[in-house]
Amino acid sequence: MNELIDALAGITGPAQVLTGADMAPWCRDWTGQYQGQPLAVVRPANRDEVAAILRLASGMRVPVVPVSGNTGLNGGAMAEAAIALSLDRLNRIREIRPEARVAVVEAGVIVDALNTAADPHGLFFPLMFGASGSAMIGGVLSTNAGGANVLRYGNTRDLCLGLEVVLADGRVLDLMQALHKNNSGFDLKDLMIGAEGQLGVITAAVLKLHSLPTHRETAMVAMAALDEAPALLNAIQDASGGAVVAFEFMPRAFIDGHLALFPGAREPFDAPHAVNLLVELAATQAPGLGETLETVLGTWLESGKIADAVIAKSETQRREIWARREAAAEIAFARKPVIDTDIAVPIDAVADFLRQIEPALRAIDPDCQLLSVTHLGDGNIHYTCWPSNNDPQLKLRLRGVIDQMAVDMAGTFSAEHGVGLSKLGAMSRHKNVVALEVMQAIKSALDPLGILNPGKTLPTPKVIRP
Amino acid sequence: MNELIDALAGITGPAQVLTGADMAPWCRDWTGQYQGQPLAVVRPANRDEVAAILRLASGMRVPVVPVSGNTGLNGGAMAEAAIALSLDRLNRIREIRPEARVAVVEAGVIVDALNTAADPHGLFFPLMFGASGSAMIGGVLSTNAGGANVLRYGNTRDLCLGLEVVLADGRVLDLMQALHKNNSGFDLKDLMIGAEGQLGVITAAVLKLHSLPTHRETAMVAMAALDEAPALLNAIQDASGGAVVAFEFMPRAFIDGHLALFPGAREPFDAPHAVNLLVELAATQAPGLGETLETVLGTWLESGKIADAVIAKSETQRREIWARREAAAEIAFARKPVIDTDIAVPIDAVADFLRQIEPALRAIDPDCQLLSVTHLGDGNIHYTCWPSNNDPQLKLRLRGVIDQMAVDMAGTFSAEHGVGLSKLGAMSRHKNVVALEVMQAIKSALDPLGILNPGKTLPTPKVIRP
Repeated sequence: MNELIDALAGITGPAQVLTGADMAPWCRDWTGQYQGQPLAVVRPANRDEVAAILRLASGMRVPVVPVSGNTGLNGGAMAEAAIALSLDRLNRIREIRPEARVAVVEAGVIVDALNTAADPHGLFFPLMFGASGSAMIGGVLSTNAGGANVLRYGNTRDLCLGLEVVLADGRVLDLMQALHKNNSGFDLKDLMIGAEGQLGVITAAVLKLHSLPTHRETAMVAMAALDEAPALLNAIQDASGGAVVAFEFMPRAFIDGHLALFPGAREPFDAPHAVNLLVELAATQAPGLGETLETVLGTWLESGKIADAVIAKSETQRREIWARREAAAEIAFARKPVIDTDIAVPIDAVADFLRQIEPALRAIDPDCQLLSVTHLGDGNIHYTCWPSNNDPQLKLRLRGVIDQMAVDMAGTFSAEHGVGLSKLGAMSRHKNVVALEVMQAIKSALDPLGILNPGKTLPTPKVIRP
Repeated sequence: MNELIDALAGITGPAQVLTGADMAPWCRDWTGQYQGQPLAVVRPANRDEVAAILRLASGMRVPVVPVSGNTGLNGGAMAEAAIALSLDRLNRIREIRPEARVAVVEAGVIVDALNTAADPHGLFFPLMFGASGSAMIGGVLSTNAGGANVLRYGNTRDLCLGLEVVLADGRVLDLMQALHKNNSGFDLKDLMIGAEGQLGVITAAVLKLHSLPTHRETAMVAMAALDEAPALLNAIQDASGGAVVAFEFMPRAFIDGHLALFPGAREPFDAPHAVNLLVELAATQAPGLGETLETVLGTWLESGKIADAVIAKSETQRREIWARREAAAEIAFARKPVIDTDIAVPIDAVADFLRQIEPALRAIDPDCQLLSVTHLGDGNIHYTCWPSNNDPQLKLRLRGVIDQMAVDMAGTFSAEHGVGLSKLGAMSRHKNVVALEVMQAIKSALDPLGILNPGKTLPTPKVIRP
């Protein structure tokens, strides 16, 4: 143990090797769900120190868990009996190139800090999610973070052109190109993104920047049923030339939950409705965004396909609309016990899923209560079930029904939060067996000693083939 | 040999196993650059037959080369002493789902056939490249094809949501999700796309469809120098809300080559210019696209940053503009010997590259002649050098200078055509050594017998590490 500490200190200097009580911030995640006791926390200053640490860890056969902002939701950055490799000191924005619309950043750069640096150029990094004030680029890439604007700008993977990765044995994989076309062999960049530190440690990246929208329109739309909502999205997209940045669905139960929890909260419409959609458009060009939205909504109102619509007339009204949507986590966790999920199905299957899941869950637990909020533009449903009691077997069954139905509808049990520790069970129960075998083969090829973030992402292989 | 033929016939029926003269269409590529003599051509009807063929090939240790449209430019589908596995009979469009904007297709579907099927829904598969009348989805995915509209719609990889792949040993990897978010383990889909059949045989895919634009504006723009062209692109993008679908650069030498080769050809402007840009915008919404383009170009004309501009006033004029651009291959191959390349550099490095490459090549061959045409919106330069003589060593040196300068500018020697046979040398000379090692490790993990498309994509490993 002392040998390890001394060797780490030899790489980074002793001030950057933390032990004992100094490790407290790395011993639990922010949700309080996961705890871990690292052997040590080491805070390298640059890529070469990361490489030296991984060579050391390989030599000593000590596990390494990369950590950046520690804002994940799945326990993927918890270090137990492992070195916690903190990337927070790799926090340089190396370059912003406005004409090429790219930023070259290190893994410890906070998402909002990148936006602060891009703003004077009229640019931004369009990843919209709650943790952007503390999440760091390394973790965002390693989980392939999503959020509310994926339908317009894509996931983190779509926003990354190049990567720098230190492999398990300390070799540096330099893929730091700012290229939109590069067909020179296998797509190692996308393999590393979302790999949750299993295949290497991301130390830097070339990220895409987009023009800051100068115009924005935000509306709430009420429908009697969800089935026509994808057609409404397509109609607004076509009329606006693809200007939709968010298309969120809140059912009646969500609005009721919001009203119950927040004393000042209001119904989005004069009358209560079953289907409440949040639509936001954004564009860099001046004319017609509001008129376009009004025209489409007007036509749909006349035809009776939507029941009501309210367009925000001020930033205050826009904030009120978003505050309701952003209360989702508070509403879900206001009751315990809670089963919270992060599934996705194809956009045209969301309504069917929501119709079928309710009786399936009530068949097991007639008194459970149900809630959902959906990034309808990308099919990602955060489905919440409050079971009638705290029986672990009941909770496991209910969660299994949700995950399995998503998979049966050609969907996934893990849309944007990743696997980490929280979904290892789902991976072994619901993931395609051949896909698991291929992942395991790649893991063994790139991390043969198994020192990178062990015990996460990939379940222990169950199927041994002849 | 007879044993192999019989076993293949047992899987597909004897009519679908071709030998001797019947194999002619599979014995050369369409450019005439590559020839091969397969052991047999087998044309399975479905995924399960593909799986059975791969199990057989694994058992007999016979190499397999997947072939679909055979329209590639790098020899990647040439089968020499291998089974040519033709996917042309897997040609079903299984499903078009207009609301979800997806198509589920098999590997043998021709790109234009998909567009014909999508058109009645007001949708299209936005991959614009010369071979779309014969290229099939399997090959398009395996090379991650690009083309002229990548700046708007992305490469093939960006247009694919799900894949079905048969692995070397016949296992089926089912990743056929139509999901925009799916963080359940490693990104195997993107690893398989662009892998040139090294890691598995793609048999089907879920592809994204986009709304067919209803409005289109096409212009030629003249500038004195290239340096401000990326800023012009960004200005048009911002003014139009991202409506640019093509932004192509043709230098003086290209226009001269076009005029010399085509008797009816005309200068794009009244006076000859050094920098000739083709700009096309397309949108689904009605108003203002033409006015927007005129406004931006007018402002730039007044400021003197552009020298001239012509907006097509009819489809005939638009066709004339595109015909000039599409003559690129004919112009390049009108002279022999020719060194033709497919490199990319960051968008903001294109002007520097073109400035620096000319003296570097003339230092080796003072009398060489030079030409380029650039997808400027994505940084992909098709650079052509006509050396003064046919000396193979000279040609190798000239090509090496082009490839190395691209790599030195954080670019690539292979942007959209892939590696196949044609760029194996460049892979061993210019590709990051660690990236090659990682690719080889993945190849060995997924195709341990090395039966999939051997001798291509990955150069024989040169660096053995301790």
